[in-house]
Amino acid sequence: MSTEGQVITCKAAVAWEPNKPLVIEDVQVAPPQAGEVRIKILFTALCHTDAYTWSGKDPEGLFPCILGHEAAGIVESVGEGVTEVQPGDHVIPCYQAECRECKFCKSGKTNLCGKVRGATGAGVMMNDRKSRFSINGKPIYHFMGTSTFSQYTVVHDVSVAKIDPQAPLDKVCLLGCGVPTGLGAVWNTAKVEPGSIVAVFGLGTVGLAVAEGAKAAGASRVIGIDIDPKKFDRAKNFGVTEFVNPKDHDKPIQQVLVDLTDGGVDYSFECIGNVSVMRAALECCHKGWGTSVIVGVAASGQEISTRPFQLVTGRVWKGTAFGGFKSRSQVPWLVDKYMKKEIKVDEYVTHNMTLGEINEAFRYMHGGDCLRCVLKMQD
Amino acid sequence: MSTEGQVITCKAAVAWEPNKPLVIEDVQVAPPQAGEVRIKILFTALCHTDAYTWSGKDPEGLFPCILGHEAAGIVESVGEGVTEVQPGDHVIPCYQAECRECKFCKSGKTNLCGKVRGATGAGVMMNDRKSRFSINGKPIYHFMGTSTFSQYTVVHDVSVAKIDPQAPLDKVCLLGCGVPTGLGAVWNTAKVEPGSIVAVFGLGTVGLAVAEGAKAAGASRVIGIDIDPKKFDRAKNFGVTEFVNPKDHDKPIQQVLVDLTDGGVDYSFECIGNVSVMRAALECCHKGWGTSVIVGVAASGQEISTRPFQLVTGRVWKGTAFGGFKSRSQVPWLVDKYMKKEIKVDEYVTHNMTLGEINEAFRYMHGGDCLRCVLKMQD
Repeated sequence: MSTEGQVITCKAAVAWEPNKPLVIEDVQVAPPQAGEVRIKILFTALCHTDAYTWSGKDPEGLFPCILGHEAAGIVESVGEGVTEVQPGDHVIPCYQAECRECKFCKSGKTNLCGKVRGATGAGVMMNDRKSRFSINGKPIYHFMGTSTFSQYTVVHDVSVAKIDPQAPLDKVCLLGCGVPTGLGAVWNTAKVEPGSIVAVFGLGTVGLAVAEGAKAAGASRVIGIDIDPKKFDRAKNFGVTEFVNPKDHDKPIQQVLVDLTDGGVDYSFECIGNVSVMRAALECCHKGWGTSVIVGVAASGQEISTRPFQLVTGRVWKGTAFGGFKSRSQVPWLVDKYMKKEIKVDEYVTHNMTLGEINEAFRYMHGGDCLRCVLKMQD
Repeated sequence: MSTEGQVITCKAAVAWEPNKPLVIEDVQVAPPQAGEVRIKILFTALCHTDAYTWSGKDPEGLFPCILGHEAAGIVESVGEGVTEVQPGDHVIPCYQAECRECKFCKSGKTNLCGKVRGATGAGVMMNDRKSRFSINGKPIYHFMGTSTFSQYTVVHDVSVAKIDPQAPLDKVCLLGCGVPTGLGAVWNTAKVEPGSIVAVFGLGTVGLAVAEGAKAAGASRVIGIDIDPKKFDRAKNFGVTEFVNPKDHDKPIQQVLVDLTDGGVDYSFECIGNVSVMRAALECCHKGWGTSVIVGVAASGQEISTRPFQLVTGRVWKGTAFGGFKSRSQVPWLVDKYMKKEIKVDEYVTHNMTLGEINEAFRYMHGGDCLRCVLKMQD
């Protein structure tokens, strides 16, 4: 029986309050309005950004909400005027929209579409500035325009990437956030050239994707920096050629790297979200040309700093969001690259669990062994 | 009578101690050794970097020394192995060397040649780690590898740009520092495109050269920011199209500029050396692509800071030294552009004085009316 046009009641993990366990609730999901798409989520992964907002430290965090932004599913129904996807299409919801019409999309210089940002930042849909989620009439906020910790979600049509229906959704859900962020930081933001020396700070999913991207770009050395030496063996499989543990050295880590590389690295990537490490990542770059890319998300209110001389002598400080990828255009391309075995995805999935186990899954995520935990969302 | 191979005794302005008046002394200038060039300085301009080291705030400053780094002259004699210039050549000494052999020169990514930096930073010549200047046997340190406040100076051959002998040396001496720094920040470091909106913080010589470079690059708006409204009329002649005085606004200047430009400027340039202004210059840039270039030199120990979110959302923070120009290769090209009237130089010369008036000249330089004061060095 078609659910089109009907309110769907399904299970979702609701964050009622900061830092309190998520609660699996029966949630009412309203039909998509004009320009909206309702998606049946089959698989979602957990990401540190979900945990950050959940923790209450995100000043933009709104409660109660349904978190989750790295997922894959199948279109259940579409609202008026939606032409690019239809029920049955396999899709990845994208927290970074791509409208192809705004100043940002038309600039050719950025992937930061501005069309729906005002609504998604406020936890609502653009059409009526309201949520499509409710429990017994009480609205529950959206999160990042995706809210994938629900069996059904409603997103803006500019936030939906239609992908190859042959792609395994329990794997390619990862192409909604962490893996593209790392690959794109290298390919789009830094534009690493063959022969480059690269430093990666933090060997979680994003850092490993940076290493993988750097290897694919022809980097001659990929130096992984992490305070957990257990991560090195795994990192080798993703392209890391050398490992440095800051705890093994008395000197500042930037000096250690400068000494190791005859003057500094060509490119560095901060994949942790620590402002002190961001400084080290800049300062380990080679004078004259070294470029440092901030990939990690720092806690609210924290600031980066350095001496301006670092920049005047030729270092460049940049950042990246979703790796600079245009979501609707390029996520399908990344799925195709995965299907052709040109990029890894399976290797990042270390845990498979179910929606009902989501609190336990977050505990795994904070452990050093976990890269990505993928939740099966449907029974 | 040839002076080749002889010690030359001539006048020079000696900085015996920080912050004490310069003293015109009879200085002995030794002949050039291997790889060195002795230059008869005809004209030198004053620059704020001279004043900074003179003030004692530069931790690398060495005393007694002979300051000066923006000059033009004629080769008097050359040391062994010098092939690219000969006595009689018209030249501009360049504080930024270009050896064409070191890792930096060969990189194709920077103008920051490293060959003689270790010596020039220590106030000596590379060959014997000694000074060529002395007074009654007491050595006087070199400064920036140029020391142009002397009627004769000795520099490394990799620091000499041979120029068109028709060029007026009392004008093109300015192509040794400030004007190329501003033009190159726009052309080489930022690579401003036609139609761009540009903000210039500080409307001294370097800031005006940024404006001129931006106009030449086709910028649609060039917004000049300065706390001295008297500077605006003059700035119009260099390409500034709008003027903003931070003192006229209660809001932070970055917010004023974002409001004026529908989201921020495409490129900004800090030409003052103030770390708070450097932050404002970054934060007035447009999300997604705005690039800020630090051109000014901050006081020692000061740091720049911002929220990393500024970079993660697509702004880029860079810096420039000598505008990214390769000195020996490109200063002659700039001279040629001046001779073809493609760039301004005369317009930056507001004062003409003599070596004997150098202390007074520095007082003029610190006044708002002065752009460049050029000293006639020979009687």
